[in-house]
Amino acid sequence: MSGKVRKEPLFEKITIIGIGLIGSSLARVALARNLARTIVLADRSSIVCQRAKELQLSSSVTQDIAASVEQSDFIVLCVPVGATADVAIEIARHLKAGAIVSDVGSVKGAVVDALQQHLPSSVSIVPAHPVAGTEYSGPDAGFSTLFENRWCILTPPENTLYADVEKVHAFWTACGANVEQMTARHHDLVLAITSHVPHLIAFNIVGTAADLEEVTQSEVIKFSAGGFRDFTRIAASDPTMWRDVFLNNKDAVLEMLGRFNEDLAALQRMIRWDDAEGLFELFTRTRAIRRSIIEQGQETPAPNFGRGPQLPDQ
Amino acid sequence: MSGKVRKEPLFEKITIIGIGLIGSSLARVALARNLARTIVLADRSSIVCQRAKELQLSSSVTQDIAASVEQSDFIVLCVPVGATADVAIEIARHLKAGAIVSDVGSVKGAVVDALQQHLPSSVSIVPAHPVAGTEYSGPDAGFSTLFENRWCILTPPENTLYADVEKVHAFWTACGANVEQMTARHHDLVLAITSHVPHLIAFNIVGTAADLEEVTQSEVIKFSAGGFRDFTRIAASDPTMWRDVFLNNKDAVLEMLGRFNEDLAALQRMIRWDDAEGLFELFTRTRAIRRSIIEQGQETPAPNFGRGPQLPDQ
Repeated sequence: MSGKVRKEPLFEKITIIGIGLIGSSLARVALARNLARTIVLADRSSIVCQRAKELQLSSSVTQDIAASVEQSDFIVLCVPVGATADVAIEIARHLKAGAIVSDVGSVKGAVVDALQQHLPSSVSIVPAHPVAGTEYSGPDAGFSTLFENRWCILTPPENTLYADVEKVHAFWTACGANVEQMTARHHDLVLAITSHVPHLIAFNIVGTAADLEEVTQSEVIKFSAGGFRDFTRIAASDPTMWRDVFLNNKDAVLEMLGRFNEDLAALQRMIRWDDAEGLFELFTRTRAIRRSIIEQGQETPAPNFGRGPQLPDQ
Repeated sequence: MSGKVRKEPLFEKITIIGIGLIGSSLARVALARNLARTIVLADRSSIVCQRAKELQLSSSVTQDIAASVEQSDFIVLCVPVGATADVAIEIARHLKAGAIVSDVGSVKGAVVDALQQHLPSSVSIVPAHPVAGTEYSGPDAGFSTLFENRWCILTPPENTLYADVEKVHAFWTACGANVEQMTARHHDLVLAITSHVPHLIAFNIVGTAADLEEVTQSEVIKFSAGGFRDFTRIAASDPTMWRDVFLNNKDAVLEMLGRFNEDLAALQRMIRWDDAEGLFELFTRTRAIRRSIIEQGQETPAPNFGRGPQLPDQ
């Protein structure tokens, strides 16, 4: 982290609402890199607040969400997407004029709507989505390098001040992320295929495997190294967060799931009718895509993601 | 690897046919642990044989598959499942009486049929499936610890000599694997859900993402850390191997895919009808399964499979 510590902070006062994996990671990187003079952390849960204090994520941790935003320049909502409206209502009257309100939600259309509906016009709304995370939740799960070389997508409404977008851009760059901008609508479509539908089918196959009668659950677990275990990682992600994602990006998810289902029906037919060439062609094409992802630094080239216990000799 | 080197080899002469990821890993571990006095490696490809010599996987590497099995005690076919019959025909007349013929295929019913049809009754057939691998192929991809703490499933036909099954069991134990026995039919059902269908849906979603018009391929690659990249690993697996798996385990794959599709339709419906409780319940259940897989040593507990570049501070 050294060498990237700012001499002058970007903001006087930042408030992070929700001290989970993302919120606590933001708190860590903001502290480590001196991104604000004051960092206030807020969470409804007394247990989470207590833990944040023990972890020394900030000297200012509170359960009082409304009070936490007072005099704050930059407020980042790190709560499940479905909680956005409630938090917006709670903080609306306490925001100072000119404050920038942002978030980290995996869905943007619904978040923009909720924020625009409930926040005063005196604040600037600059929604953001850092495409980063792990399968773990809570304040202990966060770490300061979570956003390093990951993409963060900003979806500012058209009437947002350019200078405020630039500030949020600078904030995420300082966190180690690459920043991209697009409309909320396009974001929701892109993430439906790169994140939401993958999670959906991972949750689904893990559920299917758990419910079989002919194959016992202990066999599924034992022989999971054949491929199944890869899916269990994202199927272990936070249930509340993902419930909210699917309910708040319904149209794009159902659209992309429709494509997936069409393709799967075609693939199923290839197997039934022994279309060896068709299968080989598809499997060759998919191999190339991973190479591009590795080349662009979004994935490790290490076999099996480099996970233990086995390690190549070379 | 130290401490596990045998004083006396298990076999006088082993022949490994097919020097890919699995064959070359077997060659490495057999050499390192002194599992045979002589290890012969055979592959149809002159390029692969050349590379095996350069890697010093064995002092005996040949393109002559028929000759490679002469006087051999233990022959392991490490070829795509669809090549089993051809290899069996080629080696049949050259096998010595009492030799044990095994394989490492991901499908067992079709392999047993092919071996029983083409091999003389004077040899013993003990099919095996080590549930281990990576997304890479070829002699360079192998490593001697690939089978460490992985399961290897034996599916001996009913008329097999008990002593021969024990020898193959001992071989895989010496390779570091845990050994389990079941019928070929049950194996094919278990692996359909723990390996074949997961690969199928991974291949499928990577294909779907590649074919979209509204979302560019470069966006899919950029934002793949949202979940999609996890699927690209197994979708980068060997195309020939996987084509053969699906064509040779058609019934079980289509059966398990049917279950997957039913469940996915139900999940799709939950999203469409805002069934928040149903989604939450499923996502909570799937989280528990990963914990069991980790507890049983088949997966790493490290966030994001422990892959770089980001690493937790703690």
